[in-house]
Amino acid sequence: MRIKVINPNTTQSMTDTIGAAAREVAAPRTEIVATSPAMGPASIEDHYDEAFSAIGVIDEIRKGEAEGFDGYVIACFGDPGLLAAREIARGPVVGIAEAAMHMASLVSTGFSVVSTLARSRPILEHLVDAYGMRRACRSVRTTDIAVLDLEKPESNARSAIVAECRKAIVEDHADCVLLGCAGMADLQRAIAEELGIPVVDGVAAAVKLVEGLVTLGLRTSKASGLNYPLPKPYTGVFAPYSPADRTTLRAAE
Amino acid sequence: MRIKVINPNTTQSMTDTIGAAAREVAAPRTEIVATSPAMGPASIEDHYDEAFSAIGVIDEIRKGEAEGFDGYVIACFGDPGLLAAREIARGPVVGIAEAAMHMASLVSTGFSVVSTLARSRPILEHLVDAYGMRRACRSVRTTDIAVLDLEKPESNARSAIVAECRKAIVEDHADCVLLGCAGMADLQRAIAEELGIPVVDGVAAAVKLVEGLVTLGLRTSKASGLNYPLPKPYTGVFAPYSPADRTTLRAAE
Amino acid sequence: MRIKVINPNTTQSMTDTIGAAAREVAAPRTEIVATSPAMGPASIEDHYDEAFSAIGVIDEIRKGEAEGFDGYVIACFGDPGLLAAREIARGPVVGIAEAAMHMASLVSTGFSVVSTLARSRPILEHLVDAYGMRRACRSVRTTDIAVLDLEKPESNARSAIVAECRKAIVEDHADCVLLGCAGMADLQRAIAEELGIPVVDGVAAAVKLVEGLVTLGLRTSKASGLNYPLPKPYTGVFAPYSPADRTTLRAAE
Amino acid sequence: MRIKVINPNTTQSMTDTIGAAAREVAAPRTEIVATSPAMGPASIEDHYDEAFSAIGVIDEIRKGEAEGFDGYVIACFGDPGLLAAREIARGPVVGIAEAAMHMASLVSTGFSVVSTLARSRPILEHLVDAYGMRRACRSVRTTDIAVLDLEKPESNARSAIVAECRKAIVEDHADCVLLGCAGMADLQRAIAEELGIPVVDGVAAAVKLVEGLVTLGLRTSKASGLNYPLPKPYTGVFAPYSPADRTTLRAAE
Amino acid sequence: MRIKVINPNTTQSMTDTIGAAAREVAAPRTEIVATSPAMGPASIEDHYDEAFSAIGVIDEIRKGEAEGFDGYVIACFGDPGLLAAREIARGPVVGIAEAAMHMASLVSTGFSVVSTLARSRPILEHLVDAYGMRRACRSVRTTDIAVLDLEKPESNARSAIVAECRKAIVEDHADCVLLGCAGMADLQRAIAEELGIPVVDGVAAAVKLVEGLVTLGLRTSKASGLNYPLPKPYTGVFAPYSPADRTTLRAAE
Amino acid sequence: MRIKVINPNTTQSMTDTIGAAAREVAAPRTEIVATSPAMGPASIEDHYDEAFSAIGVIDEIRKGEAEGFDGYVIACFGDPGLLAAREIARGPVVGIAEAAMHMASLVSTGFSVVSTLARSRPILEHLVDAYGMRRACRSVRTTDIAVLDLEKPESNARSAIVAECRKAIVEDHADCVLLGCAGMADLQRAIAEELGIPVVDGVAAAVKLVEGLVTLGLRTSKASGLNYPLPKPYTGVFAPYSPADRTTLRAAE
Repeated sequence: MRIKVINPNTTQSMTDTIGAAAREVAAPRTEIVATSPAMGPASIEDHYDEAFSAIGVIDEIRKGEAEGFDGYVIACFGDPGLLAAREIARGPVVGIAEAAMHMASLVSTGFSVVSTLARSRPILEHLVDAYGMRRACRSVRTTDIAVLDLEKPESNARSAIVAECRKAIVEDHADCVLLGCAGMADLQRAIAEELGIPVVDGVAAAVKLVEGLVTLGLRTSKASGLNYPLPKPYTGVFAPYSPADRTTLRAAE
Repeated sequence: MRIKVINPNTTQSMTDTIGAAAREVAAPRTEIVATSPAMGPASIEDHYDEAFSAIGVIDEIRKGEAEGFDGYVIACFGDPGLLAAREIARGPVVGIAEAAMHMASLVSTGFSVVSTLARSRPILEHLVDAYGMRRACRSVRTTDIAVLDLEKPESNARSAIVAECRKAIVEDHADCVLLGCAGMADLQRAIAEELGIPVVDGVAAAVKLVEGLVTLGLRTSKASGLNYPLPKPYTGVFAPYSPADRTTLRAAE
Repeated sequence: MRIKVINPNTTQSMTDTIGAAAREVAAPRTEIVATSPAMGPASIEDHYDEAFSAIGVIDEIRKGEAEGFDGYVIACFGDPGLLAAREIARGPVVGIAEAAMHMASLVSTGFSVVSTLARSRPILEHLVDAYGMRRACRSVRTTDIAVLDLEKPESNARSAIVAECRKAIVEDHADCVLLGCAGMADLQRAIAEELGIPVVDGVAAAVKLVEGLVTLGLRTSKASGLNYPLPKPYTGVFAPYSPADRTTLRAAE
Repeated sequence: MRIKVINPNTTQSMTDTIGAAAREVAAPRTEIVATSPAMGPASIEDHYDEAFSAIGVIDEIRKGEAEGFDGYVIACFGDPGLLAAREIARGPVVGIAEAAMHMASLVSTGFSVVSTLARSRPILEHLVDAYGMRRACRSVRTTDIAVLDLEKPESNARSAIVAECRKAIVEDHADCVLLGCAGMADLQRAIAEELGIPVVDGVAAAVKLVEGLVTLGLRTSKASGLNYPLPKPYTGVFAPYSPADRTTLRAAE
Repeated sequence: MRIKVINPNTTQSMTDTIGAAAREVAAPRTEIVATSPAMGPASIEDHYDEAFSAIGVIDEIRKGEAEGFDGYVIACFGDPGLLAAREIARGPVVGIAEAAMHMASLVSTGFSVVSTLARSRPILEHLVDAYGMRRACRSVRTTDIAVLDLEKPESNARSAIVAECRKAIVEDHADCVLLGCAGMADLQRAIAEELGIPVVDGVAAAVKLVEGLVTLGLRTSKASGLNYPLPKPYTGVFAPYSPADRTTLRAAE
Repeated sequence: MRIKVINPNTTQSMTDTIGAAAREVAAPRTEIVATSPAMGPASIEDHYDEAFSAIGVIDEIRKGEAEGFDGYVIACFGDPGLLAAREIARGPVVGIAEAAMHMASLVSTGFSVVSTLARSRPILEHLVDAYGMRRACRSVRTTDIAVLDLEKPESNARSAIVAECRKAIVEDHADCVLLGCAGMADLQRAIAEELGIPVVDGVAAAVKLVEGLVTLGLRTSKASGLNYPLPKPYTGVFAPYSPADRTTLRAAE
């Protein structure tokens, strides 16, 4: 099985961290290819970044389909481009925010998300609602660390995250914590050991969900709103992304 | 007051229809400029189209800010790029789906949306939820007419829409109908007369809301998740969209 | 266009404040008539006050219909008598609580309401739910200032309101504030300047919404639960309010 | 124990029906006094009727407090004036819509309401939401019989109601039915026998709830939004309803 | 009327407390029989305890049906076995958590639950949701007192509960408190006097609800998901609980 | 990795079907042990059956912990005993209803559940709510086939299920179907082929989720309401299930 793990931002060091986290949990016969788009934002911290990164994700999925991947992970905790990506993929596409939330709901009575900048709170709360997790989610908390600062030792990311997690446990009655940024994937083990409760990294969670869906033969449904995009002309710089006529393609499948 | 009405798709005839609908209700001193992006899909009917049209919307808002517009309308009933657009605009930005829903909730006990293709139902239902309209919205109905066919006489768009509206009234107890596509803006008057109930065209509704917000001095809040995008490098074809450092800009304001 | 702005309580100084706030934002050709009922409570602070003020509102709407107004604003943040008023009006009727909430949801990620006495919190929370604003509303906060004390300098209303707004921003993550009493209309500008975020006065917001609805030709739907009241005898002191037989009236329209 | 059962409309025959239904289930030592206001609508079928009937309800509660009643039933399925009534009563006040819904939720998996005119559906659906019964309520159905026609043999009320109940059972999966009008109280037994499922009349249900609350010593909480109305001047025809200064009254209790 | 009040745990002193609380409010002609199962946990503090106590509850209901009881109370604030109990009872079965919540919603604007151990919070929050009380319930609070320690003077249960109630009033704006454990039934009066707001003991509340339902002739609906269990073989230690063939039984009724 | 798949009913042929479905999707190194309790109901079709089967599930988990299993599947679509099971297990425990819903939400815009007898609808709708799937679930449909009749050729189970699925697709706009009974596991492939949309069997889905959770090191959180049961005496036939004192056990781990 081949899974493409897409880091929607263009920072290679984060792609490396994400790839390592994915490989660590992948099944022996799963091949993980971690990539990031050729264009777009260096990190994703607001709706504006998300809009551009969605095109990067789409670009990577299009290439992935040509390369024959069985499934995809979108490795940014805002799940940018998720539904568009599902439309063009035959196999399953899973975002790391939804992956983390679904997995957390199976081992806890209520989880909290601990993320980076305060401004991303509304984005994450919107995902909590959209995924039906309003009851399962105790709170969304932020640490005021910028995404790309997570890698810098002077940010003291780990201790800041742990401190916020402890508040979630005591003040919000959470018994599970979600790391609210793909750039925190390498901290999961240390934080879990320190806290003694389940700590979910969405990258790893999404890899296992995609593997599961592929094994189950469950592909994105093409019977309604996630069907392949309708063929039509695109203009300007986006002309190459014009959706092909699937009736031709399907005949060839 | 100058309002830019952005048709997120690239079809000029729809931009013309939208512009006419906007001008018809605009206040005497309001200048309406109707535009469409230089790039992107000819019509917007799925998440994939939405992702690309969002970039077009952003592009038009960026230009609009340089041109000094007071507010913006996003004239596609999926409100593509709305939150990213709000981040980069000083003034208000209103989508036509939210505009139609808010206005309808003020004159009815429950509205139905009548839209184009069946595949767009989940997109619209998601908006209904996100805007808090689950109770106000009686149903989302579709006519199976493609967006660009609305203009073709042989599509019998008006009678198909009226037929679906009547079902909404009788079967779903709706007492107000929303035209679920910007391309239906020119049909509002005829359909309203035929049905005898309020029929809301989102383009016109959004123009009045933007005018109202501007007059009230209500601009997009920059105190949380709709603040200007954080400055950072963008790569590749998107490099020109790299968010500027606002600390410099603000000093200059 | 003629809009009647009804202060549902009987305190003339508040009617004056409300009228001034309405006129300040009204379009050049809009005539604002601010009135208050001939009977009822001096201020509205509980359900009991609301019940009586609803009759006053109805009385003013009935007179307004005879006088040919195009639309109405109910200028008390509990929106008393709103749905009954809609039944007897041909044009739109908008309450200032709903107006403020709808407008706020267009320029923020989450608003808080800052109102007067603590006992009104459940009334406001009920409105938040009824208008579908549970997700958009971060909190309802109160200042413990009685409605009629807002006008008294010794109440320090402005600083008390600003203090509560700051708590809403910091503790509840609100990025927009609603002034939860018509009597605060004259404080909007000062508070907005002090806070640097959108501050919504419902009176002004409602005027722009009514203007918009009238321009759009959107009247209260008569196709379901907001139809004209059924004709029937009323007894006692309310006999004059007995709903007329509309079949006769309509023939005359 | 003395319970005042208030028919909020002025039709004596309905008051008689309601009184009989209340007495039939009251405990041996409970005295039931059934009354209707001296003023207001002959029947309650829209928000306009409700607004006036609320004053009648308040009037009856005020008299009831002077007469020393232990609790009150508001016997109209829209529960008009309920919260204002609670503010002025020491003992419990229960509406028949809420009573029926609470009782039904204890003996069924999901109930439907069968009411009179179609226009009342939104009113009842609002109550369903306000009382937290959205999950417990399968549907609100109407028979198109006017309230005062229920008593007329030619309306065939019973068979029309039974027919609608059967639809609720088959189409909506309801296993319990609520009679959505106080005027149906005398039909409860016959309909229950015909259908073979629990059929709840709100008048009887409310009597038992008030009896229960009084026995339990549970009075309306005065610690927040249901406290006695604040003392203040009322003007015009409503001057006599001006809330008294409770600090004096309490000293006398 | 004969009501069986079932303490689902096996501690006789709690059964005595519960029986006394029930008898104190029961109508003169109501016979209260308080029992506890012959098997199961000494107290109920987690889902594991609940699973076993549900069998004890079922056992007592089965005996109760043979003994001809008219209705049942399940006297543990987690309402264990409630829906299974309803399936095998002809008459009504009411849990004390649901009873307390329904009664509280009739006399307050929002209640808080004050219970025993922190680990029971998720159980209670689930009930709040399932009963449609999310809006009516301000908070679930716990005292960290084990169920069986409530009876021990050294636990200072009353003052700990009162302290938590005061926090609910001040911090959560509750104006009514529910005692979240059957073992607190004997503290109701003292706590209510101390706090001066309605304090609801579920045992007493449930007794009045069952009395009411029986008088109203409202039995558990057998038309859907609460019908008698389907006849089928049970094996092992549960063989005696194998549901009988009701077609035979009904013929005999 | 060793996973115990527990069929909560006592019918061996269903256990065989379930075991086969589990093994078909399990990873090469996963050992599947399919069992059913020594006691309890032959099939699970109502709350009464569920209560007894929960004890059987608990019994199997207790044995499983002694045998060193890494995780568990509860293979009945009502997820009986799930939360109690989680309390006593170190590793993850997943029910097949929740597994199917979570997986379906990743590949569709909205799923429907097609189950057995009509009386189970409320049970399934309760799970939909409890798991946050109200938006993701389009409908719960039933076929009126008893659980144990699924295996009988004369029940025509497959064609009845397919017919109901088609209704879900056309009438409810579902684009994914969940087989609402463990006894349908062997039909998944045939039905999926016939319908051409994703069809989810919960048994297979749960196996992949447990495998994933175990690989991720995510165990049931012991920090709140899913902690090990508190030690206490159990009496009667349940005495052997008395929770042990974990402080001793943990020292030995």
